[in-house]
Amino acid sequence: MTQLTLHNYFRSSTSYRVRIALNLKGLDYDYVAHHLRLGKHRDAAYLDVNPQGLVPALVLDDGTMLSQSLAICEYLDEVAPQPPLLPADALGRARVRMIAQMIACDIHPVNNLRILNALRARYGADDAEIADWFRHWVKETFDPLEKILASDKQTGTFCQGDRPTLADICLVAQVANNGRFGVDMAPYPTINRIHEAAMALPAFADAAPARQPDAE
Amino acid sequence: MTQLTLHNYFRSSTSYRVRIALNLKGLDYDYVAHHLRLGKHRDAAYLDVNPQGLVPALVLDDGTMLSQSLAICEYLDEVAPQPPLLPADALGRARVRMIAQMIACDIHPVNNLRILNALRARYGADDAEIADWFRHWVKETFDPLEKILASDKQTGTFCQGDRPTLADICLVAQVANNGRFGVDMAPYPTINRIHEAAMALPAFADAAPARQPDAE
Repeated sequence: MTQLTLHNYFRSSTSYRVRIALNLKGLDYDYVAHHLRLGKHRDAAYLDVNPQGLVPALVLDDGTMLSQSLAICEYLDEVAPQPPLLPADALGRARVRMIAQMIACDIHPVNNLRILNALRARYGADDAEIADWFRHWVKETFDPLEKILASDKQTGTFCQGDRPTLADICLVAQVANNGRFGVDMAPYPTINRIHEAAMALPAFADAAPARQPDAE
Repeated sequence: MTQLTLHNYFRSSTSYRVRIALNLKGLDYDYVAHHLRLGKHRDAAYLDVNPQGLVPALVLDDGTMLSQSLAICEYLDEVAPQPPLLPADALGRARVRMIAQMIACDIHPVNNLRILNALRARYGADDAEIADWFRHWVKETFDPLEKILASDKQTGTFCQGDRPTLADICLVAQVANNGRFGVDMAPYPTINRIHEAAMALPAFADAAPARQPDAE
């Protein structure tokens, strides 16, 4: 594996996903922080790295830039296969990707900082309305996710069996975000159990926002 | 391959993605329409199929349900490898997934019908404001996407080389959606060229919303 540079932000849950994946793979990386709330990800210098101006972005030592957290995680899984982030069978892989994308497509994007800022700017949404928006979209997906996890024997210690996968990576990062907006987690015993099991692993715990060098 | 049932809606761009993938693979499927604007995807009978109440969902003949369009496409690519939806090399695969997720995570979710409906209900957004919201988030991603595609020799007839991939699947479905909200496509010559090349292929053209049995 080449030298890796991760452009990220301690509180970004998509950055958190990639940090977990890098830790699970045992890969070292240079940590470059971009302060999202101060708009540092839109500086010209960073736009030269990632034209989309979003974190995370992983830069390889030949300058190749990869963005989009799930694409980065799948890349890492292909070039550093152990331990695997996906199960070996196609149906299991589909289920893990489904769970990951329920969070990565249906919760995170609509609750991202840029969207919450747009609701404030366009519609004058206040803190209470922002929190209600956030919690609404979590509930829309966490209710069925809890049902899917609780009702399926494929669920084990983790979302799929007894090893952490891409699904757990997304779940943990989302649960961390939920805490900032007062999401009631009582209806989600299976999610909570999996979250706890994952956070007991150093790869997850060490990737947490509070443990990053730019944590406030 | 088992008998496949696709729960979908002609105008849903995530359904469109899966229809293209099924066509590229030459796989037959039963088409079950759920009228999203009438809320038919939230009927109890469909919630028994997909607890998330979203389309698309692909059901295998043993009853296994797969949701999330990119997870479904990757599953199809694993069980029916020809023609491939991803290139063979890890870096190429990462670039294809990155482009696909730029659309699938950063545009589609925030412009989805349920979000636009929430903007109307919560903030009284009118048609003009909805269209402006839609166009804003397209531009936020299509501007850097055009730059990424135009500046990289990996771009060929399609997003990655000269064969259609998962990236083109997402691109085509998004461009179709853009047309409904008056997105100015003039700044995107590379995206337009790729869209045109893809729509010349029957697998893409036959999957278009207007050609589906539930088209209005």
